[in-house]
Amino acid sequence: MEDYILLIDTEDAKGLVYNISKVLFANNLNIEQNAEYVDSNTNKFFMRTIISGKISQNMLLKELKEVLPDNAEIKLNKKAKKDVVILATKESHVLGDLLIRYIDGELNANIKAVIANHEDLRKLVENFDIPFICISADGLSREEHEEKVIKKVNDYEPELIVLAKYMRILTPTFVETFPKKVLNIHHSFLPAFIGANPYKQAHQRGVKIIGATAHFVTNDLDEGPIISQDVVRIDHTYSWQDMRKAGRNVEKIVLSNAFQMLLDDKVFVHGNKTVIL
Amino acid sequence: MEDYILLIDTEDAKGLVYNISKVLFANNLNIEQNAEYVDSNTNKFFMRTIISGKISQNMLLKELKEVLPDNAEIKLNKKAKKDVVILATKESHVLGDLLIRYIDGELNANIKAVIANHEDLRKLVENFDIPFICISADGLSREEHEEKVIKKVNDYEPELIVLAKYMRILTPTFVETFPKKVLNIHHSFLPAFIGANPYKQAHQRGVKIIGATAHFVTNDLDEGPIISQDVVRIDHTYSWQDMRKAGRNVEKIVLSNAFQMLLDDKVFVHGNKTVIL
Amino acid sequence: MEDYILLIDTEDAKGLVYNISKVLFANNLNIEQNAEYVDSNTNKFFMRTIISGKISQNMLLKELKEVLPDNAEIKLNKKAKKDVVILATKESHVLGDLLIRYIDGELNANIKAVIANHEDLRKLVENFDIPFICISADGLSREEHEEKVIKKVNDYEPELIVLAKYMRILTPTFVETFPKKVLNIHHSFLPAFIGANPYKQAHQRGVKIIGATAHFVTNDLDEGPIISQDVVRIDHTYSWQDMRKAGRNVEKIVLSNAFQMLLDDKVFVHGNKTVIL
Amino acid sequence: MEDYILLIDTEDAKGLVYNISKVLFANNLNIEQNAEYVDSNTNKFFMRTIISGKISQNMLLKELKEVLPDNAEIKLNKKAKKDVVILATKESHVLGDLLIRYIDGELNANIKAVIANHEDLRKLVENFDIPFICISADGLSREEHEEKVIKKVNDYEPELIVLAKYMRILTPTFVETFPKKVLNIHHSFLPAFIGANPYKQAHQRGVKIIGATAHFVTNDLDEGPIISQDVVRIDHTYSWQDMRKAGRNVEKIVLSNAFQMLLDDKVFVHGNKTVIL
Repeated sequence: MEDYILLIDTEDAKGLVYNISKVLFANNLNIEQNAEYVDSNTNKFFMRTIISGKISQNMLLKELKEVLPDNAEIKLNKKAKKDVVILATKESHVLGDLLIRYIDGELNANIKAVIANHEDLRKLVENFDIPFICISADGLSREEHEEKVIKKVNDYEPELIVLAKYMRILTPTFVETFPKKVLNIHHSFLPAFIGANPYKQAHQRGVKIIGATAHFVTNDLDEGPIISQDVVRIDHTYSWQDMRKAGRNVEKIVLSNAFQMLLDDKVFVHGNKTVIL
Repeated sequence: MEDYILLIDTEDAKGLVYNISKVLFANNLNIEQNAEYVDSNTNKFFMRTIISGKISQNMLLKELKEVLPDNAEIKLNKKAKKDVVILATKESHVLGDLLIRYIDGELNANIKAVIANHEDLRKLVENFDIPFICISADGLSREEHEEKVIKKVNDYEPELIVLAKYMRILTPTFVETFPKKVLNIHHSFLPAFIGANPYKQAHQRGVKIIGATAHFVTNDLDEGPIISQDVVRIDHTYSWQDMRKAGRNVEKIVLSNAFQMLLDDKVFVHGNKTVIL
Repeated sequence: MEDYILLIDTEDAKGLVYNISKVLFANNLNIEQNAEYVDSNTNKFFMRTIISGKISQNMLLKELKEVLPDNAEIKLNKKAKKDVVILATKESHVLGDLLIRYIDGELNANIKAVIANHEDLRKLVENFDIPFICISADGLSREEHEEKVIKKVNDYEPELIVLAKYMRILTPTFVETFPKKVLNIHHSFLPAFIGANPYKQAHQRGVKIIGATAHFVTNDLDEGPIISQDVVRIDHTYSWQDMRKAGRNVEKIVLSNAFQMLLDDKVFVHGNKTVIL
Repeated sequence: MEDYILLIDTEDAKGLVYNISKVLFANNLNIEQNAEYVDSNTNKFFMRTIISGKISQNMLLKELKEVLPDNAEIKLNKKAKKDVVILATKESHVLGDLLIRYIDGELNANIKAVIANHEDLRKLVENFDIPFICISADGLSREEHEEKVIKKVNDYEPELIVLAKYMRILTPTFVETFPKKVLNIHHSFLPAFIGANPYKQAHQRGVKIIGATAHFVTNDLDEGPIISQDVVRIDHTYSWQDMRKAGRNVEKIVLSNAFQMLLDDKVFVHGNKTVIL
């Protein structure tokens, strides 16, 4: 007997909770946890329910479909580890943090591989008994390199792709190949300091707080739906290098926090925002 | 057509959500917001639902009672302002903060009166056109004084009583007269620094963070169910007076936050803890 | 015997601390507190020292001038309350918060008057026995209205001007009339959401944290040197009105924090940044 | 030409800053950074100064001694990496976090060895090319085991000893062998929840915020001088295991923060408190 996570994303309508709970009750299932959200502006209904009992997936999905609006998105995921591929470049702090959490059992994931465009992180990754694949971009066009990366990522059939300070801009092809599946960490409190060198920008502006933002990758640089943010106080004594160092703590926490919420199926995309249940 | 807040606190049982939503659906009511929590250790179920539609209160309560466990607590409150009495002594910062929020329309309350054991705050309160009653404790025993206070509080039939730095210890009589209705602010991060002079205690111990705690009053001093807490960083340069000053910001925010959650019927008492939906 | 605050802002040079402390020592003064900061990029030296003893101001300034670089800025302020004028419009939350702190003795200020372009706040202000002057902008050009405001502000010879949600854009004339003297609160975490309706912008973008920023007013809207910032977490359930309500706490704290630091002579302007000692 | 950190801990006296800066000036040294603190209650003076120039250590110490009170503690440390030994048991999260920071170059340390009373962490540590020594306590009295640990620690002549979730209580012998050198992380917001199972205690009490505390080890369990603290919000849905997981982030940040401040010679012990400059 396994736990399942039921995810519903649909237009709102009268009696939705009643109709859904009727199906669950008729199937003799227990509701272990339940959370809903209705956005009254967009008239959208989101629901995340953890159910247990003897489940016939196809049957249950069919019955739910019958009581829900036509274009409702319904997912029924086993409460299980998700397969993940991590992309990285040279920096070790965020990747290392994920690996430590991984061996601590904090992440509900199977990290299938780390793919990087440089060799620097090989030893770190392999020490954790995780495959490391370097796909150098030397001599390749952006498209050629990315094609190779996409092919390799696809070999692992990941449910999630985490950019752990992957310092290459993805093309629309990449984004469309893995819709709502690519998680990025940006080292600023978005929408402040979009683009390159946010710590230098923050230093220049003289802010008293810096932050980091985890978001889904879309075709607009640093403008995808935000999943998690956090901040840390700084003061006038911080050089931009000091800010970068202080910011690393925030990057680690924000990325791992967003990652865990995705692994737990807690995040819905709602336009250019997220609903987290 | 008014909004109502339905509050259910009961033993958990299979089909609760289904049964409740069936009643709501049969009565043709809309669910505007819904949150549940099941505590698997204590097997308790808590639910807070905002419903709209044409409601016959007695009928609805009766129908809900029929589908819920025998000892279920069911409340159906109009989404409306609550009548409140504030008790204070001499300090103005927390009281003043509440009054400013009150005139800003931030608090879903009718402040019926401020009752104090000293005259100091009269001008402040009356300037906001709120009755101020001073019940001096001079020459009275604790019991005699409290009896007068209880009598006066009862005149206003408040749904909530807020202790805004009321510097007298309440007797069990007071607590039993107003069960789950008395909100207090303690100027420490409980359970650290219970009792008198928490800022002096904190200074003595050399902590790097101080806090405040809003809690229901019970017969155990500073040990009632915690509703809200917050903290602020300090450092070695802070005297205990500096800590007190820094702590005031936290006291204000924590108390007003807890107060608003009570006004919005978001807080359930669960043993010596709170569930906030 | 009074305490003085010595403020030095100069090019860095070898032996500055030695030379300054020699003068203080020769004058038989005690150093109660001392803080320095050297910015190695700009080669600037900032120092804030609280001194006590029998002080002849002119003499001391003269002796310090002799040992410091030619263009050094040297100030010697009595540790005393500063005269302040507050500008406001209609919103009461920030102003009310300052008034409550004022009567609590938290602010080292004499609030000489509140000047507003609407009548709404008169009762609130006068209840605290502070003069309220309404200068309506009706039928006046921006320049005509501002001229009247400047004239009235000047009547009070304030050392600081606090914009407590003053909803009019100041002209360069105003800024130049009171250089480094005008403190503003902006209801966003600058540089995110510059300009109008930052809470609506934040809601639109789907951020998970909102903030507020206190800064000196310059001729570039919302781009003056930042003094203080703070943030608060929000989530997908917040409408922009909920954000505005949550943001009010932050606005109050950030503005009063910046205000107190200015009253304590802790803030140096350093290019478009601040140094806080 | 190297940078040095000058640390002075003495009774306060008139002219201290003048006298110290005179010696530095006479030796033709640059003051790169300077911070002082005077505790007016205890009449103690603390100073941390980063100096550069051509330094004769013995000479400089001698000259400073001449101008300072007799029992002044004066240290002159090269601004260099400190030798460190880490003690651990079985948990990897805090240790792993330190190791990731170590290879990132965030820590100004040479980690000479990790000593543990179990074998579990060997692979993790050795993968980072750091010696791992297991000293099992099986069949040994507390004193016998500790004697072996002390002997091994002494082999590395560390300037600092970090307890990274070392789950054994140290005897007074250990504490006296390494005075002001042993850094511990306690997984609660001290002084709340001293002793065993703080997360279970916190769950029991129903707090809304949990924390962690880094402190010097003394003979009073969890009562040594606090160096750093931080907190994280939780709610009623957290089991104590969830709290432990959430708390790990805080433990990592608090310990690494305190560790870095010790490596940078920023922490003075002042009675049972710390002064951080």
